[in-house]
Amino acid sequence: MLRVRRLPIDTYPDNTAFMLRHSNGYSAEQFQALRKIRITGEGREILASLALVDDDQIISDCEIGLGEQAFRRLGLPEGAMVQIAQARPPASLEFVRRKIDGDTLGEAEISAVIRDIAAHRYSPMEIGAFLVACAGFMSTPETLALTEAMVAVGNHLSWDSPLVVDKHCIGGIPGNRTSMIVVPIVAAHGLICPKTSSRAITSPCGTADVMEVLAKVELTSKEMADIVAREGAVLAWGGRMNLSPADDVLISVERPLRLDTFEQMVASIISKKVAAGSTHLVIDIPVGPTAKVRSQNAAVRLRKLFEYVARHMGMETTIIFSDGSQPIGHGVGPVLEARDVMAVLRNESDAPADLREHALALAGHMLEFDPELPGGRGYARALELLASGEALAAMERIIAAQGANPVKPSLGKFRHDVQSQSTGRVTSIDCERIARIARHAGAPLDQGAGIDLLHKTGSAVHKGEALYRIYANSDIGLGFAREFAGENSGYVIA
Amino acid sequence: MLRVRRLPIDTYPDNTAFMLRHSNGYSAEQFQALRKIRITGEGREILASLALVDDDQIISDCEIGLGEQAFRRLGLPEGAMVQIAQARPPASLEFVRRKIDGDTLGEAEISAVIRDIAAHRYSPMEIGAFLVACAGFMSTPETLALTEAMVAVGNHLSWDSPLVVDKHCIGGIPGNRTSMIVVPIVAAHGLICPKTSSRAITSPCGTADVMEVLAKVELTSKEMADIVAREGAVLAWGGRMNLSPADDVLISVERPLRLDTFEQMVASIISKKVAAGSTHLVIDIPVGPTAKVRSQNAAVRLRKLFEYVARHMGMETTIIFSDGSQPIGHGVGPVLEARDVMAVLRNESDAPADLREHALALAGHMLEFDPELPGGRGYARALELLASGEALAAMERIIAAQGANPVKPSLGKFRHDVQSQSTGRVTSIDCERIARIARHAGAPLDQGAGIDLLHKTGSAVHKGEALYRIYANSDIGLGFAREFAGENSGYVIA
Repeated sequence: MLRVRRLPIDTYPDNTAFMLRHSNGYSAEQFQALRKIRITGEGREILASLALVDDDQIISDCEIGLGEQAFRRLGLPEGAMVQIAQARPPASLEFVRRKIDGDTLGEAEISAVIRDIAAHRYSPMEIGAFLVACAGFMSTPETLALTEAMVAVGNHLSWDSPLVVDKHCIGGIPGNRTSMIVVPIVAAHGLICPKTSSRAITSPCGTADVMEVLAKVELTSKEMADIVAREGAVLAWGGRMNLSPADDVLISVERPLRLDTFEQMVASIISKKVAAGSTHLVIDIPVGPTAKVRSQNAAVRLRKLFEYVARHMGMETTIIFSDGSQPIGHGVGPVLEARDVMAVLRNESDAPADLREHALALAGHMLEFDPELPGGRGYARALELLASGEALAAMERIIAAQGANPVKPSLGKFRHDVQSQSTGRVTSIDCERIARIARHAGAPLDQGAGIDLLHKTGSAVHKGEALYRIYANSDIGLGFAREFAGENSGYVIA
Repeated sequence: MLRVRRLPIDTYPDNTAFMLRHSNGYSAEQFQALRKIRITGEGREILASLALVDDDQIISDCEIGLGEQAFRRLGLPEGAMVQIAQARPPASLEFVRRKIDGDTLGEAEISAVIRDIAAHRYSPMEIGAFLVACAGFMSTPETLALTEAMVAVGNHLSWDSPLVVDKHCIGGIPGNRTSMIVVPIVAAHGLICPKTSSRAITSPCGTADVMEVLAKVELTSKEMADIVAREGAVLAWGGRMNLSPADDVLISVERPLRLDTFEQMVASIISKKVAAGSTHLVIDIPVGPTAKVRSQNAAVRLRKLFEYVARHMGMETTIIFSDGSQPIGHGVGPVLEARDVMAVLRNESDAPADLREHALALAGHMLEFDPELPGGRGYARALELLASGEALAAMERIIAAQGANPVKPSLGKFRHDVQSQSTGRVTSIDCERIARIARHAGAPLDQGAGIDLLHKTGSAVHKGEALYRIYANSDIGLGFAREFAGENSGYVIA
């Protein structure tokens, strides 16, 4: 038995335990050779990697140190007595091995894998193995089983309405912040739209990050339900809802590996929407040379997979293809994107036209779900609600209901203009590059960091003219972004 | 610039850096969101994961803490000034992504991946992704390219002889310690056999672990060369030689994932043998229901792959299939296996007959490589050298040359007999299970830990009679092994 000691070391996302190297009879090296240990006490259990400590000031003989992450996950107080044992690999790893060998897995097998992943019983390496094996080949029934398994291990929200609308964009286009325009429009019309969004993981900005510039987004399920009851809609961060905990774990490995298969994408999106209680969903698939989907054929294949899985999960979908050839709007980064969104809602004359147009198209498709509205009237109705200021009023009510941010974060004070190397026309802007430059500047954690695009494709520029401005609140962040943009600005001028 | 501080925390096999959470302008959380950082100074560079510390007793504002592993790899003294930056993923990860997408890679691409892996630029997750993608499909030219790339990044040994013999068993059979019998036999005959062996990774015992019971095995290349010049042979640990550093890294991921594809196995073995300067190689493929190779078809496929790669690498091979239906010899674990080996070399009457017979067969095949010996005389010559005591004398010279162990480690003082649950005959013994029980007891780090098999297949046993005895030097180890054996002893009695 070892005494738990909390160590002020955060090894997110991994659980790490610390033990004195020479102690406890059975040598710590023997445990370490096994890489992973199981820590149990008072009915709680976690798996952790083991770090060996050579200084008894940090940890002493009869203790086990737990890093912040491991301490939180174990959930026992300091001083609790725990036992350690060799971690047995989860039994479902056998199914992963079969998948690696080329087998097709059944529902029960996929469900066992997902349960173990959601319970944090897999290491990143093991999760990577599962994902890569699935990337090699995954049947549509397997994709459906994966979606069902992901829904089964999470929380479910339910709404007292037969029509709960939602939208989702598969991502990859910087500045594509349509949700914050679409949701107030459909709310102003009277539809129920309890929107949960993610924070950025490898992108410079998620909808939750932008909404947080304006209002509180970390809501409890109860708070969310109250707001939806009053306003019809909400724009909350989904992370707290635990809607698809297995997906959250999978994403933590997909992103660094830049694995982005259609099967994983469909299972991830549909599982979260089902868990969030949506019944009708508009999915936006941007297609472009630097977008996630780069050809019409691929877009059609993805659409069919969405349709197959959504239909079997009992969800209505409208799937649209959109222009993913360049970033949307002007700003990339939380503060900048919030500025663009509000400019559109306020019908300002310099509001980005592409963002406005794209949001209206999506809102139009969502409004078509309303059986009361004559077919084909969705777009016109959306335009009416936006132009009249009703959408802005709905947004202001939603912000007030969630809790308006008393002090708005400001735009980064360190700035750098990236200039055109030649005179000509902007022929393309690389979405991936722009996203990564904004990320290097510090977005989204630095809310004022990002990029303001001063030219879009088709625009004429002179040599030395600024193409875009980088913002950051730290000179280190600005330096990283500047260096990265110096290698390749993401713009092609011809 | 940050000052390097060595922290007495060993996070093997990962590099870990420790920074104060709130410090250095650009927040540590922003770095952590990136998961991996690049640390550079005085021309040295490592990648490390970042742990955030909330206590400035452990690390202060202008410092970066390095765990033992990271400190050693960076190779700078304490107090050195270093810079940190966001780690860029190695460019060769693009080839891994293409492999995941189903492409076949060319020589230059595989070589780039292997160079980055050998330089520790890949995380375990990224290595896992590469290995699983290769497990999905790998062409024979890709396997050859992998072998060549692995040879290219390591050290090479060379011997002043046109005939340098070696043997290798693909493993998986506990107690199969033939090298320590075969090497003295061929040395007694006068062949050059500079044998490098591995330590156990997930098995309870490697040849280097058993040899270490008798003599020093951590030799420099120079010491090894001197011993081979005098004795014709050596039994050294290959780990110090850096013969295939990429393979050492790959293995650290293959083993926990229990990935064991033929392509990786062939590239691993042939690359190490080429690097060790061998010209003629006997490969032993045990076939059995719980062995690595479980059918004759699979054995033939593996043999052909070995032949293809070895031929293109300019190496002569003889590949034999052997009985892999149960463990070989009596003992499993360093001290126990050393006992069995010496009993065979000393021609003791109770020496394990199966170990003796298998070693003679392998030595016979190796002796056939000698152009001076009439064809088909290998086995008889091997038997003659063993029976006459010449092999024992050669072994004693090799032990003396390497440095005999002054104090022999003793057999574990904690013991437990696993008893038969019924009366009947032993119909099968599960190699994998026996290996894991011995491992749980503490082998190989606890040299005296292991299993002594008292019955082999075909043997008649009574209910309550001991099937095997578990040994350990710690009661925790004995407890683990006992519990594990209690779930499933690995024996079937019928």
